[in-house]
Amino acid sequence: MPKQIPDIVISRLPTYLRALLQMSQEGRQVTSSQELGERLGISAAQIRKDLSQFGEFGKQGTGYNIEFLANQVKEILNVNRVWDVAIVGAGDIGRALAGYNGFSERGFRIKMIFDNKPEKIGTSAGGFVIKDSKTMKEEILAAGIKMAMIAVPATHAQGVADQLVEAGVKAILSYAPVNLNVPAGVRVQNIDPSIHLQRMTYYLEQ
Amino acid sequence: MPKQIPDIVISRLPTYLRALLQMSQEGRQVTSSQELGERLGISAAQIRKDLSQFGEFGKQGTGYNIEFLANQVKEILNVNRVWDVAIVGAGDIGRALAGYNGFSERGFRIKMIFDNKPEKIGTSAGGFVIKDSKTMKEEILAAGIKMAMIAVPATHAQGVADQLVEAGVKAILSYAPVNLNVPAGVRVQNIDPSIHLQRMTYYLEQ
Repeated sequence: MPKQIPDIVISRLPTYLRALLQMSQEGRQVTSSQELGERLGISAAQIRKDLSQFGEFGKQGTGYNIEFLANQVKEILNVNRVWDVAIVGAGDIGRALAGYNGFSERGFRIKMIFDNKPEKIGTSAGGFVIKDSKTMKEEILAAGIKMAMIAVPATHAQGVADQLVEAGVKAILSYAPVNLNVPAGVRVQNIDPSIHLQRMTYYLEQ
Repeated sequence: MPKQIPDIVISRLPTYLRALLQMSQEGRQVTSSQELGERLGISAAQIRKDLSQFGEFGKQGTGYNIEFLANQVKEILNVNRVWDVAIVGAGDIGRALAGYNGFSERGFRIKMIFDNKPEKIGTSAGGFVIKDSKTMKEEILAAGIKMAMIAVPATHAQGVADQLVEAGVKAILSYAPVNLNVPAGVRVQNIDPSIHLQRMTYYLEQ
């Protein structure tokens, strides 16, 4: 069994990967922990320490091969494959997510979108026909989808999360500004702009 | 001068505040670090340790008064006041942010929204008339706005960030999936759904 990697290390890897892919798009081939650190506002030592948890990815003094390291990080994060994702909620955020074309190169593919409003069901969002959320559980189960994004009002979010869990979803990204309760074995990430803004106001001068 | 609080502690406070406000809305008056911890998936000891950095907020054995603690955390985070925020980019995300009514109770007020597309300028988004981004710097400067959200394509994000910095903005929440470079004294937070999804795929079974 592999050793347990702290979640805080895992949480930084996607940012490293994004920076590496950005460098790759700029036509770059080699980078260093110093350069990565400067781009990300993280110390070079931290980056070296994080990466060393998974093996040796660069030679002392010659830096990292960007493409090689990016592929290694993809493999660690399990995004050297494509994950199907369901969206629940076809409001502004749900529609924006359905129409966003940046997922495919990061390991994700939107597969279906649901809403409970009769006037929305059957209409289009981001190239998908909006499905009735009454059918959500069976459709997600049948498609074997393990990831979902919740973009419904706060009051509905827990109910939706419960159904997603019953449908076999193991990872939920929620845009609803509430804390969701899920059983062990299911992971939740939250995107709440107020939380991010409040993380910065602490540092602002009054 | 007050002691330096680790950023990781600050990063958890907004989530505590959100949970406290949620309890308050449920009509609750007292909570404990145990209950907060269960709601948030954080250990009670961690919560007590974090809060103890700022003083004594509860009595041993009697728990925390929810309203009092919420107000204290608001004060620590500087959100016992209202911050004006500018939005740059009136695409799907920018429009969703402009129309979102959850900011006011969390300490923020959207003040203006900008776009560079002639066909969007002068039209409405979330109750705001979209302004020409050519006027962004002077308008933000004149209004004394210190916070902004960037919702423009990745290729435009750094240019927008540079202008915001020149306009005196000190805190940027970016929805563009790129690493922004800003001078010392300016803070950036990123919201990138792929990053959050990739933080979870590590834990998913293949």
